[in-house]
Amino acid sequence: MARKTFPLNAWYVAAWDYEVGRSLLARQICGKKMVLFRTLAGQAVALADACWHKPVPLSETGKLIGDNVQCGYHGLRYNTQGRCVVMPSQQTLNPSACVASFPIVDAHRFVWVWPGDPTLADAALIPDIQWMMGAERLPDDTEKIWAGAGGTNWIACDYRFTLDNIMDPSHTAYAHSDSIGAEHTSTAENVMTQNESSCTLTRWMIDVEAPPFWKAHYLAAGFKPGNVDRWQIAHFLAPSVVAFENGVATTGTGAPQGDRSQGVGSRVVNCVTPITEDTCAYYWCNMRNWAQSDQGLTFRIRESLRRIISEDHVLLEAQQRGTRDFPEQRLNNLNVDVGGLWVRKIIESMIDREQSAPLASRSHSTHGSVAST
Amino acid sequence: MARKTFPLNAWYVAAWDYEVGRSLLARQICGKKMVLFRTLAGQAVALADACWHKPVPLSETGKLIGDNVQCGYHGLRYNTQGRCVVMPSQQTLNPSACVASFPIVDAHRFVWVWPGDPTLADAALIPDIQWMMGAERLPDDTEKIWAGAGGTNWIACDYRFTLDNIMDPSHTAYAHSDSIGAEHTSTAENVMTQNESSCTLTRWMIDVEAPPFWKAHYLAAGFKPGNVDRWQIAHFLAPSVVAFENGVATTGTGAPQGDRSQGVGSRVVNCVTPITEDTCAYYWCNMRNWAQSDQGLTFRIRESLRRIISEDHVLLEAQQRGTRDFPEQRLNNLNVDVGGLWVRKIIESMIDREQSAPLASRSHSTHGSVAST
Amino acid sequence: MARKTFPLNAWYVAAWDYEVGRSLLARQICGKKMVLFRTLAGQAVALADACWHKPVPLSETGKLIGDNVQCGYHGLRYNTQGRCVVMPSQQTLNPSACVASFPIVDAHRFVWVWPGDPTLADAALIPDIQWMMGAERLPDDTEKIWAGAGGTNWIACDYRFTLDNIMDPSHTAYAHSDSIGAEHTSTAENVMTQNESSCTLTRWMIDVEAPPFWKAHYLAAGFKPGNVDRWQIAHFLAPSVVAFENGVATTGTGAPQGDRSQGVGSRVVNCVTPITEDTCAYYWCNMRNWAQSDQGLTFRIRESLRRIISEDHVLLEAQQRGTRDFPEQRLNNLNVDVGGLWVRKIIESMIDREQSAPLASRSHSTHGSVAST
Repeated sequence: MARKTFPLNAWYVAAWDYEVGRSLLARQICGKKMVLFRTLAGQAVALADACWHKPVPLSETGKLIGDNVQCGYHGLRYNTQGRCVVMPSQQTLNPSACVASFPIVDAHRFVWVWPGDPTLADAALIPDIQWMMGAERLPDDTEKIWAGAGGTNWIACDYRFTLDNIMDPSHTAYAHSDSIGAEHTSTAENVMTQNESSCTLTRWMIDVEAPPFWKAHYLAAGFKPGNVDRWQIAHFLAPSVVAFENGVATTGTGAPQGDRSQGVGSRVVNCVTPITEDTCAYYWCNMRNWAQSDQGLTFRIRESLRRIISEDHVLLEAQQRGTRDFPEQRLNNLNVDVGGLWVRKIIESMIDREQSAPLASRSHSTHGSVAST
Repeated sequence: MARKTFPLNAWYVAAWDYEVGRSLLARQICGKKMVLFRTLAGQAVALADACWHKPVPLSETGKLIGDNVQCGYHGLRYNTQGRCVVMPSQQTLNPSACVASFPIVDAHRFVWVWPGDPTLADAALIPDIQWMMGAERLPDDTEKIWAGAGGTNWIACDYRFTLDNIMDPSHTAYAHSDSIGAEHTSTAENVMTQNESSCTLTRWMIDVEAPPFWKAHYLAAGFKPGNVDRWQIAHFLAPSVVAFENGVATTGTGAPQGDRSQGVGSRVVNCVTPITEDTCAYYWCNMRNWAQSDQGLTFRIRESLRRIISEDHVLLEAQQRGTRDFPEQRLNNLNVDVGGLWVRKIIESMIDREQSAPLASRSHSTHGSVAST
Repeated sequence: MARKTFPLNAWYVAAWDYEVGRSLLARQICGKKMVLFRTLAGQAVALADACWHKPVPLSETGKLIGDNVQCGYHGLRYNTQGRCVVMPSQQTLNPSACVASFPIVDAHRFVWVWPGDPTLADAALIPDIQWMMGAERLPDDTEKIWAGAGGTNWIACDYRFTLDNIMDPSHTAYAHSDSIGAEHTSTAENVMTQNESSCTLTRWMIDVEAPPFWKAHYLAAGFKPGNVDRWQIAHFLAPSVVAFENGVATTGTGAPQGDRSQGVGSRVVNCVTPITEDTCAYYWCNMRNWAQSDQGLTFRIRESLRRIISEDHVLLEAQQRGTRDFPEQRLNNLNVDVGGLWVRKIIESMIDREQSAPLASRSHSTHGSVAST
């Protein structure tokens, strides 16, 4: 069996929380086809998407009967643990009759699934992106308010290409030159810190002209025209989340030192879930710290981001085709790839640990969270 | 070479008889691409669908010149035995110039082809479903009249999945719950008889409420409202025909003992021909024994059956996808699969005999026919 | 690695000259994906169509910056030799940063690319089809004028099937029976001459009725009604060009002996470039020696030829499918295949020489040209 390109013992975003409900939703996570739904009490459930009897996808022909899902072919019903509890025309239920059930958790506006060994699934390992819910508890016990909306792109590429892309803000100078790109984004210094389960890329661009997207929002928020200090800080939380801080503040007002009050900032959450080896789902959301109650602004920013990600979408699928068409070409790395290189190093060591460790003795890695800003 | 999933030394329905005529019809039977047509005298012909010279499909570019088919590229003509009889610009015909010719027979409204060893083809082995022609000769030398019409579904599934489906009436409770399904169809007892080339599944549901389809026809035929005795009797005639008797009669009037005169009944012929390992052609036809001259009824029943088979079509293609997506899942069998299990056992032993026996010494199996009702 | 079906050390038509300009054009030649463009000075350039950094196709997202092509992802710029000359955010350029550059030449209304060893590329090896430019220098230092227009078909077949087709005029009797086909085209004698890099098939049909296409043009050009001497002379210039002379002259006026003045004639250039092993690009053009200034006639003849080639297109893709569906069928040859057999023999020996010879010691074969008519 070829080495997988993703760890299985990890939480992956399977859907936005509102997508999972009282109808059957088909999703594929790390090559595993699943059917997702909620119980009458609202608990999310993920089962293997094939009846035990004949492997008809439950999501295609089945229906919910209370908290059970009933296959549309012969009426076998499975409970939330995947156990067959009704088998029409049988006196006794076959004791082996069950489908796989996957650990699943609602958190931070997403539904997270653990496609690997269920005994290792620990909800505490879900990346802490609590500010996705709108409020962030700060160290001084006050709350910071964030607001925003997002979307999903289904991209025909290796999920690592998408992570490379997010961890490399320099590409915005070329791929997104009329929105968030600027000459300075291709030349800013990259500062990297890392541990075994996360890494952070930090870039400061001091006394620069804001690019179109940021200039417009900075001015609309009432700040004075002029140059800004700009930041791009990408926190990778292995194996599939990047919390990306970015923003601009009036130059000279202390943003690099920690006071970002004289400007506007966003946190873009990027959750990239492998569907198969060469396809991925990219869940993205922009959360901002200004004009939080302006719903119109929420949706205008979402559409701006959707367009930017569409530009990446085209590039990423092109890269996948190029990778297939030029199999002899090695991946060449530039300075700008430092983030992607650490991402891959962390992912590779997760896969190494997963494939070498006996199931029971695997030690959980600690997942990082995003430092408050 | 992987073991085939179908025997080649057998008759398979290649087309409805009216589909084969004076234009070239392409069909694929058990992986073999063929071109079908009729001679001026009306005899059906099946040839390999590729010119001997360059393998252009004859069906795509060729045309009929009398009883010969002429390739559209260089004008080579083949007679009904597949022998090349005209080779333009050649002084002499290459003695090896021929394409395969397949045994082909018109019977019971279908054209049957034998894709295997032609020396073993015996028209007497074609399943006896003479009542498809409208008249059935009974033992007392009277005739019973049957009338009906059918259709064809091209299904992207292993032909055995379709046979499993037909041999298992219990699924109607779930897949066809608003037409022929009823709770009692999932719980009726299955009685099985079999020999080396056929098997019969018999199910009687005594003193039950008829499902919507049967209730409507029973009443329209003038029988008194009330409970019925219902029968589902599936005769498998290896390797690819199921003659399915079903109907309802007033309960207590002796239907299980042999007198079905107080009700209405059908014979549904189901001919399932492998196209490839994972696609099949499903020819189906409902023949009924009441109101035989009512053409409107013929077509209304055909459309009812078309809808039921469309429901199966969706399930069968879903099962094929599920089988591909869950390769590690074994086929699990329930009580309701007894028919399908015997079908597969008979097919497997046909394949065994075909692959082990020297060609010349293969003994023909006797094919069963449907007992009169 | 399977033996290739085409030599790489050869010139192939990559595009019509007018197709290559100041936008990025993607083409695939012998399995190699390329991006084509022209410099500001008009020089054609062909580079491998994947950025050195991440293999995004340059043709899809890149743009021209002067004479350089800039990748749309990270802004790397390549010069006409494929050398990376700008690498944003890098202090130094990686010395290995380059993409393959292919020899490319404008000649005879086409752009020709050499997909193999660039050190062996010699523009003198491009087949001499100078009359494609409209004027042909004759031995007596006068000029003969030719006029015409062409088109391109992208055909899902092995390029050798297309060459077989062109080198076999007999098929016109069946495939093109209402335009250029006639009974005599299937029975004319084939005279073959050949050397190591070209071969010529010559066919004369004496005192015959012209087929519809030729009769119409012959009469319109003012020649008297009646039988003609017809010629079909196919010059194969390895590995992918066939210059096809054809025409008709009043019978008995000496055409077979060399005086074709009492009739009309064309040269059809056919350039067949392998895209992959089972797809090809077919560039075709009819150049005629009468009514050269009649632009309407130019385009009417082009549309006639387009229709004829569409008929071949259907046959060739059918042959490719038949070849896939009947893998056990050997290629059977008739007398009419003598041209195709020589074509394949010459191509095979080119491949043999290419695969066996050390790169530096390969001796160039001399390419033939079309004798003046």
